[in-house]
Amino acid sequence: MSTSVASQFTVAAASGGVTAAQGFTAAGLQCGIKAKAGALDLSVLAAETAVPAAGIFTTNLAQAAPVTVSKRHLEASHGLVRAIVVNSGCANACTGAAGMSDARQMAAETAAQLGCLPEQVLVASTGVIGVNLTMDKVVAGIRAAAAALGREHGSVMARAIMTTDPFPKEHAVTVKTPRGTFTVGGTAKGSGMIEPNMATMLGFLATDAKVSPAVLQRVLRASADDTFNAITVDGECSTNDCVFAMASGASGVEIDDELYPALAAGFYTVSRELAMGIVRGGEGATKLITIAVTDAHSVADARRVAKTIANSPLVKTAVHGADPNWGRIVAAAGRAGVSFDVDSATVHVGGILLFEHGLPHDGNAPLAAGHLKQADVSIEVDLGTGGGGNATVWTCDLSAEYVKINGEYRT
Amino acid sequence: MSTSVASQFTVAAASGGVTAAQGFTAAGLQCGIKAKAGALDLSVLAAETAVPAAGIFTTNLAQAAPVTVSKRHLEASHGLVRAIVVNSGCANACTGAAGMSDARQMAAETAAQLGCLPEQVLVASTGVIGVNLTMDKVVAGIRAAAAALGREHGSVMARAIMTTDPFPKEHAVTVKTPRGTFTVGGTAKGSGMIEPNMATMLGFLATDAKVSPAVLQRVLRASADDTFNAITVDGECSTNDCVFAMASGASGVEIDDELYPALAAGFYTVSRELAMGIVRGGEGATKLITIAVTDAHSVADARRVAKTIANSPLVKTAVHGADPNWGRIVAAAGRAGVSFDVDSATVHVGGILLFEHGLPHDGNAPLAAGHLKQADVSIEVDLGTGGGGNATVWTCDLSAEYVKINGEYRT
Repeated sequence: MSTSVASQFTVAAASGGVTAAQGFTAAGLQCGIKAKAGALDLSVLAAETAVPAAGIFTTNLAQAAPVTVSKRHLEASHGLVRAIVVNSGCANACTGAAGMSDARQMAAETAAQLGCLPEQVLVASTGVIGVNLTMDKVVAGIRAAAAALGREHGSVMARAIMTTDPFPKEHAVTVKTPRGTFTVGGTAKGSGMIEPNMATMLGFLATDAKVSPAVLQRVLRASADDTFNAITVDGECSTNDCVFAMASGASGVEIDDELYPALAAGFYTVSRELAMGIVRGGEGATKLITIAVTDAHSVADARRVAKTIANSPLVKTAVHGADPNWGRIVAAAGRAGVSFDVDSATVHVGGILLFEHGLPHDGNAPLAAGHLKQADVSIEVDLGTGGGGNATVWTCDLSAEYVKINGEYRT
Repeated sequence: MSTSVASQFTVAAASGGVTAAQGFTAAGLQCGIKAKAGALDLSVLAAETAVPAAGIFTTNLAQAAPVTVSKRHLEASHGLVRAIVVNSGCANACTGAAGMSDARQMAAETAAQLGCLPEQVLVASTGVIGVNLTMDKVVAGIRAAAAALGREHGSVMARAIMTTDPFPKEHAVTVKTPRGTFTVGGTAKGSGMIEPNMATMLGFLATDAKVSPAVLQRVLRASADDTFNAITVDGECSTNDCVFAMASGASGVEIDDELYPALAAGFYTVSRELAMGIVRGGEGATKLITIAVTDAHSVADARRVAKTIANSPLVKTAVHGADPNWGRIVAAAGRAGVSFDVDSATVHVGGILLFEHGLPHDGNAPLAAGHLKQADVSIEVDLGTGGGGNATVWTCDLSAEYVKINGEYRT
């Protein structure tokens, strides 16, 4: 019996978050960007030396200064990064030349404290947009954070990157392979605003696998496509979204082609857990909705249909009200702009058939309504094209609370 | 001084709705599709003989039976139509072969009563989807409606096509030209559901101008692009959407190339008024939002940006809360998928500058907040590309009431 190495790895949940992997320290504190007492607003994640790093960034044309700076630094450092500095409470977006200078200064100050080059530091910000940072507070905060770095502070960082997130999000796994065990840890913040504004998503992953910047970029992108990029709270995409990864190599487990699937599994598991946390913590969300679209002409088609259903206010409000409203699901799929035959499509909710051969199965509605009363619900749409394209997307329901949170006038 | 004929016409509001133009009669009554006492649910619009007609239809792949039948009848009749029969309360969508047979029977029964061919009758339905019509009630209703047709019943039809619309929508104009005066009237129903489901839009226009089916189709399409197709309540597109036009020719004013602009102005004015009514009557809507995007690379780009802003839940909730949140507007424009330079773009709200050269004008925020407290508000985004593409889109705000209306479980 032939068994490939790739099939022999095992992924297991581990304690801790972004500093679960060896070779990383973190710090989080309040430097004064947020006014509320005890509200953490500045954090640093650091490796012991410059290590391979990767990043994926918002596709929004309106790009915050830290995004621009981090992109440049990742390039200028040839993907070798010592630290990431993050502030919450101010997005440093739409802040002009002063904002660019502030983002650069955040990197430079962190570099000065750690003894590395400014381009070996990445920067991320989240919070109010159109407002400049108070740099004396930020600089003092960076100095204090650099002095407080410790492996035990991963969870503090998870709290310090939050804005209106209802809870911190962190996760870690160990991946056991025939050539040794490595760890992948991470933390993320989700959609949250009040006081202006953006549903910013930030994610930070750190592993002690030994991997080149190019392979790290590849694995980060691949796992994000099926996790961070497969979630939607309200279809918005912010000026500040980014996900970073760093790899210390401290486990000694070198990732080659054979071990790549093990690395991918570790990244996927952590990213998925963080992404689910973001959806669960969506503004006003009461339910996690998994939308699986199968048998589209292509994966891209399946993803487009799944996202259209996920962003449909009618579907989201129906799920909020535990209404097994297959009609809204069919109509959303029908306007997604991909080709399929409605008469060949089926709609299930929680595995319960609601629509087939162009006709409803209304007798199943009470059963499906029961499923929708749960906190974790699923919608399954098979397009029956024979093309075999599948995609899964996660979203949350749309509640009156979302409107309340986002409609309140900022003072 | 040279003056073209086209510049000499004048458009004036007239009383009445869909039967304001000569040569049309209507009827509306309750046949029993809706259970509630006094809830009108069936109507007929008729010409004295088969007259030029045109139609535009939903692009949703899930297409209701009446849509399929009306498309076929418009083709089979070579665009010469005697009447349109409309029911509300049941969409006859996702109803299989029985639904197709029912829609055909609605046309056939109307034709039998009026003495024309079945294909000279168009059919429209709106209401609950996945439920079949009770045809004995519908047939009895069609017979009673055919016997009750009168020019004075235009407003009754406006009420009989409603589902959850908060008010009926009708409008008419007279167009005075050097070669005589003609009238364009119309009625429409908007987004409204509860009990399942779709935000169906139906529109009916009738003119006494003398015009061929082909030109009628052209003017209907052109006016709809800038009116019915430029509104959005929640980005949904239903299984039943359609807009029909009929032209009796009774005014004797023949539309040639010279008079085409006069016809277009009449159609545009009536369509715009009806479309604005639909937005004002959007579920839970408290404000009409006009979104004007200027200087995109193309009209298509401008429309895409305007629609992305119009469908942004973050923008819609901000407007609901009278928050002049330029950041959400910039972010929505930035993710619309069209190319522009954020630093060259400006954002105004109610004519008040909020964003320019990549920076906010926060001093103007209180003034803009005052504007947003009104019932009619505007957002102006100039993309500054030099391309000159402009588009205007109308939408409504997103309120907690929308969630309540659409989240209630249907019984």
